[in-house]
Amino acid sequence: MSRYIFGIDLGGTTAKLGLLSEQGRLFEKCEIPTRIENFGKNILPDLAKEIERSMSDNFLTPDDILGVGLAVPGAVIGESEVAKCINLNGWGGSVAEDFSKLIHLPVKVINGSNAAALGEAWQGSGKGYQNLVFVSLGTGIGGGIILNGKLLTGSHGAAGEIGHMKLYPEYMEAGVACGDFSCGTTVNALPITAAKTLGSAECPASFVGFGETEKCSCDKKGCTEQYVSATGIVRTARAMGMTDADSKFGFLSAKDVFDKAKDGNKTALAVAHKFAEDLGRALASVSAIVDPEIFVVGGGVSKAGSFIIDMVQPYFLKYSFSACEGTEFALAKLGEDAGFYGAAKLMLQ
Amino acid sequence: MSRYIFGIDLGGTTAKLGLLSEQGRLFEKCEIPTRIENFGKNILPDLAKEIERSMSDNFLTPDDILGVGLAVPGAVIGESEVAKCINLNGWGGSVAEDFSKLIHLPVKVINGSNAAALGEAWQGSGKGYQNLVFVSLGTGIGGGIILNGKLLTGSHGAAGEIGHMKLYPEYMEAGVACGDFSCGTTVNALPITAAKTLGSAECPASFVGFGETEKCSCDKKGCTEQYVSATGIVRTARAMGMTDADSKFGFLSAKDVFDKAKDGNKTALAVAHKFAEDLGRALASVSAIVDPEIFVVGGGVSKAGSFIIDMVQPYFLKYSFSACEGTEFALAKLGEDAGFYGAAKLMLQ
Repeated sequence: MSRYIFGIDLGGTTAKLGLLSEQGRLFEKCEIPTRIENFGKNILPDLAKEIERSMSDNFLTPDDILGVGLAVPGAVIGESEVAKCINLNGWGGSVAEDFSKLIHLPVKVINGSNAAALGEAWQGSGKGYQNLVFVSLGTGIGGGIILNGKLLTGSHGAAGEIGHMKLYPEYMEAGVACGDFSCGTTVNALPITAAKTLGSAECPASFVGFGETEKCSCDKKGCTEQYVSATGIVRTARAMGMTDADSKFGFLSAKDVFDKAKDGNKTALAVAHKFAEDLGRALASVSAIVDPEIFVVGGGVSKAGSFIIDMVQPYFLKYSFSACEGTEFALAKLGEDAGFYGAAKLMLQ
Repeated sequence: MSRYIFGIDLGGTTAKLGLLSEQGRLFEKCEIPTRIENFGKNILPDLAKEIERSMSDNFLTPDDILGVGLAVPGAVIGESEVAKCINLNGWGGSVAEDFSKLIHLPVKVINGSNAAALGEAWQGSGKGYQNLVFVSLGTGIGGGIILNGKLLTGSHGAAGEIGHMKLYPEYMEAGVACGDFSCGTTVNALPITAAKTLGSAECPASFVGFGETEKCSCDKKGCTEQYVSATGIVRTARAMGMTDADSKFGFLSAKDVFDKAKDGNKTALAVAHKFAEDLGRALASVSAIVDPEIFVVGGGVSKAGSFIIDMVQPYFLKYSFSACEGTEFALAKLGEDAGFYGAAKLMLQ
């Protein structure tokens, strides 16, 4: 008897559902609005109704269903507990248990980015690879790491948070005293060359003026997300002099930057290179830690197509440890379906 | 019947051998010189003789021995093949097979830093933890990652190469044209603030003067090893004005820097802070990728003791993703024995 799985990708606006076979064949795909009012109390009942509807339409009984995998936009502990989701009005809690009671089927819960990674590894561009790193470049950056075919979640649910790797140190003002030591000297995280250039004669440690001043969404400074997300690309573009006048739609976006770069606009090309060098260096560091076979790049920014990979790869080679230079790159293939594919795959692990 | 394992840590000067029980109890420890002449052709025969000697002294027959784990100073593929080791005059090859033929016992081979990680996880500061990252700060930087109790080796044997994560971008000269695009503008990997500060009015992308000019031992630029290894610390110290006159032994070392910092010397403290901020940021990035329970810090630099961890931890908190702020830190406990402990442990996996 062949069995089926439901995969659900719950987002802040809609939830996407897929009915799949254990082999990853898609039988039905649908989408319902996410009602986030009243702290999201309708979310699970709405999903339950849609699953009932699909089972009825497809003549499926509970015995035909292996279970339901649910991807959520937030941190997940132990495939069951969900931390309050900012995008869902603080909805969260014992989601696997609550949902399972409602639909009388086994439920496992997974973080959305991790689900997308698992989906791409199962039926997308990572198919056939046992070790891959998925990076989703959208408003923010999502990531997921698959090692030996299994998702790496980490000791605090934070594995694969590639967007929060620190690409740059924090900016430090002149005259700030050494942390706990109060020695009166100033310090900063500069490489030697800058130290030589910028150091003041009075105090050998007063190397200032370099680093990140703005906070990331995570409240820290210098995160990869601040430079290579769609938001980060626009930030760079504005700092380099591009304005809303450079946009087809009156509001500068990462798409505008890449479109102009493809047309040979010098400023846009420089912005694209800055993005590519930052992302190439970030992925080179990821390689030196988990050393995947392939990087799969998804999210809105990846819609600029192979242009992205063509730009990033030379910078990856510039920074990668020699043994990792052969690491492959691919664009994600499943698009917005990756999340429900991965959520479904979770039920098979 | 209790069984025994030999663990060997082969270095460029000596090889350390340990005879251990399956439970990790150490029965005998010895050390023999590594004869690297003639492309190391004596290395395996010398080790074989020492194992025979130890078996005879301890009244052990081959039936009592589970196998021999051998840690080598180089890249290892599939627990058997060893790439040419620079420290051993190019010695390498089918080491597990060759050695096994010589001693008539099962042999597994492992990289030295990975072995130390496994050793610390088994019987050192990582005992009881399932997910740990070991970082060894010596002349270079070694690393090893244990996930779910198992060593992560990576798709190209490069997992855990923490020393080659790229902390800083490469320095770029003014006027260098954009890579493949030859658009004529200059580019550099600067964060926005520096871009604003240093960008020239003529070309919005000509942000120059920041980044790494010197090559790492791996031939790339901006590696963590260039800043937080013993060598890197001395480089920073010299750039900040310290000289051999600051050394007790007439030649400035990382130990001199930390000794002076502990005594309150301002320049040495600034160097120590630079080290701590760079290492704290590097480990924060490692956390955002593999999210371990604990970092175990070993190698020569760690001999400065808890001072190191006390300095690094605040910078780790400054840069770490919030979920990872509780990640623990410990100094390595097994010292130079970690390698043979880990090599032995490999036989139990």
